Amino acid sequence: MFEFTLQHIDATTGARVGSLATPHGVVETPAFMPVGTQGTVKGLTIEQLRATGAQMVLGNTYHLALRPGADVVEALGGLHRFSGWDGPILTDSGGFQIFSLAANAKITEEKAVFRSHIDGRLFELSPERAIRIQEQLGSDIAMVLDHVVALPAEAEAVRDAMERSVRWAARCKAAARRGNQAQFAIVQGGLDEGQRVWCAEQLAALDFPGYAIGGLSVGETPAEMYRVLDFTTPAMPKEKPRYLMGVGRPIDIVEAIARGVDMFDCVMPTRNGRNALAFTNAGPVRLRNAKYEREERPLEADCPCPACKHSLAFLRHLFMAGEMTGPILVSIHNLTFYQRVVRAARDAIRRGRYAEFLADRRAIWSANGVESAENGTEDAAGGDMLDETTAQ
Amino acid sequence: MFEFTLQHIDATTGARVGSLATPHGVVETPAFMPVGTQGTVKGLTIEQLRATGAQMVLGNTYHLALRPGADVVEALGGLHRFSGWDGPILTDSGGFQIFSLAANAKITEEKAVFRSHIDGRLFELSPERAIRIQEQLGSDIAMVLDHVVALPAEAEAVRDAMERSVRWAARCKAAARRGNQAQFAIVQGGLDEGQRVWCAEQLAALDFPGYAIGGLSVGETPAEMYRVLDFTTPAMPKEKPRYLMGVGRPIDIVEAIARGVDMFDCVMPTRNGRNALAFTNAGPVRLRNAKYEREERPLEADCPCPACKHSLAFLRHLFMAGEMTGPILVSIHNLTFYQRVVRAARDAIRRGRYAEFLADRRAIWSANGVESAENGTEDAAGGDMLDETTAQ
Repeated sequence: MFEFTLQHIDATTGARVGSLATPHGVVETPAFMPVGTQGTVKGLTIEQLRATGAQMVLGNTYHLALRPGADVVEALGGLHRFSGWDGPILTDSGGFQIFSLAANAKITEEKAVFRSHIDGRLFELSPERAIRIQEQLGSDIAMVLDHVVALPAEAEAVRDAMERSVRWAARCKAAARRGNQAQFAIVQGGLDEGQRVWCAEQLAALDFPGYAIGGLSVGETPAEMYRVLDFTTPAMPKEKPRYLMGVGRPIDIVEAIARGVDMFDCVMPTRNGRNALAFTNAGPVRLRNAKYEREERPLEADCPCPACKHSLAFLRHLFMAGEMTGPILVSIHNLTFYQRVVRAARDAIRRGRYAEFLADRRAIWSANGVESAENGTEDAAGGDMLDETTAQ
Repeated sequence: MFEFTLQHIDATTGARVGSLATPHGVVETPAFMPVGTQGTVKGLTIEQLRATGAQMVLGNTYHLALRPGADVVEALGGLHRFSGWDGPILTDSGGFQIFSLAANAKITEEKAVFRSHIDGRLFELSPERAIRIQEQLGSDIAMVLDHVVALPAEAEAVRDAMERSVRWAARCKAAARRGNQAQFAIVQGGLDEGQRVWCAEQLAALDFPGYAIGGLSVGETPAEMYRVLDFTTPAMPKEKPRYLMGVGRPIDIVEAIARGVDMFDCVMPTRNGRNALAFTNAGPVRLRNAKYEREERPLEADCPCPACKHSLAFLRHLFMAGEMTGPILVSIHNLTFYQRVVRAARDAIRRGRYAEFLADRRAIWSANGVESAENGTEDAAGGDMLDETTAQ
């Protein structure tokens, strides 16, 4: 029911093109998954989400377990039926949200105990509970519960969390009760090559159907992140999908693809879209800028999204006037843009020209990029409706 | 270029079915116009707006003149091109927004002077300026500037405003410079039969291509409003379209259609939609209600809108979780519902069964209605993105 097929590996980079079959359909890789934290990608209908080109969506275990509750989602037929998204769904485990709650979470070998960001209610998440909830949600891919630490951190703290993550991965695997849900394990180990490689090997021995790289974009520089990928992906099973969690900017995605990563998720397209920052092939566009007041051109003339049927002047007006149509349209544009990036990457890999594609993207995006390595996983706060947090 | 064709008048009520040809297409009447205050119907893309069945959209002169400015809209090719809506557009004159600014507006025979609700800037609106701005916006139908008073009011104040509205209508007509924009005059006169009839006759003598009824839903009861329609529409030219401004609830619309009204606009579908109140044939549904927590049924099984592809439980969850997808979906549903109401009314009139249709709607909606005669014209505040003002 799960099958990852590697179709082509680039000769000069580590970039790979492949396909991942799931019970709800096939995903072409490299793939970008929009984040549907609470059962919806913020501001988009299912039709609009599908039209962006998205093939697989991410849901957040922590958020859905708090609201409406895993039992409610299960009673309503699972997350596919509840949300209306009938394609593949991956759910995270809640590990990153525990991390983002930081001071309010207590982690022992048995479990994490923390207070809900909504009402302060005590909430427990063990590896077994994280899997149980994801089985209630009915996602196609469940993530194991991991222990994430902020960087920089003491070597001992990083090692302790990494080793716990390996033990928790084994417990998650043992807790699986469903045949139609695949579990992905998560490689931790901070910025340390020895720890990352050891962790990857330990998890490989447990034979999961897929592997993620966690604990990145949590305080380190982009260069450090790329360096970690340089030594981590080669230690991961070649024939299994590799998923870089919560990353990132367009440049991060094409850099990670060059290092053999197959899957991504990030809130940047929607979070930035709500705050008037649009991604384009020529670099980011800050739509509140007065220079667009009478600009007739669209964001990108060759983009098929509904935002690009409008002038920059109109999009700017929507933000200046506080119209929610602005956040909606630019979220759609950004999600469409991210899908266009991974599609272009797949095409470049198939044509054996990924190195040129990457060089071209570096030349433009490194000069005109959004400067951030902020992790683009939805944190416990879950993203306000009108979040003013930009990742600029 | 403008032609109103009466196709059928109901034998037992005053209900009429017809069509209004404009430079941007034909509108079937009775028609409901969604309100696109600032160049967008709140929360909807153009594709979604079209899919609701809307044929004509209303834009607000006051709001667009303040932001982005009539000169900006004109420079960008007019409101059709600016907003992306290529169907018919009607613009109001700003009269109602002056009324809503109340204490901050000074009205003389020459003009209204008031301060912008955005930045306190002084703004002047004369009949000539109201027409000039609407010509810059390039709407298909422009409304004359009128003087609206809150009800109840002294008879003398109502008469003074009504008489000024007639003089201003004549000045608007004289100010017209474009051949491809029709002006509709506005009948005022409060709740007084003599004043309403006199006003309608004075305006009829000026031979406008269409006539509106203004100054209703401004404090009077629904019964008073229906009574005013009872004696006002017969005094208006039979062969011209009749437009009831800023009204209203579904029951108000079907009652007004019975009294010979052809066109409506109202912010109720979107304002209520943003606040979790959905309109249905069975009456309003308040989506935050705990009884919907696990309700699998949709709002309306026979509704083609994207909200009705979801369960009530999911829609409730979106509002409880603060997801903007909730306001979006229910705005779309409500706008679709209003279009379904006027379509059903047109069908009933054509089949000679409007009296039965009205009796049926009265039986259900009067028992389960939204209790309000609040005017559904966008006021000067323009409706917040997350307006908590419900018209319940």
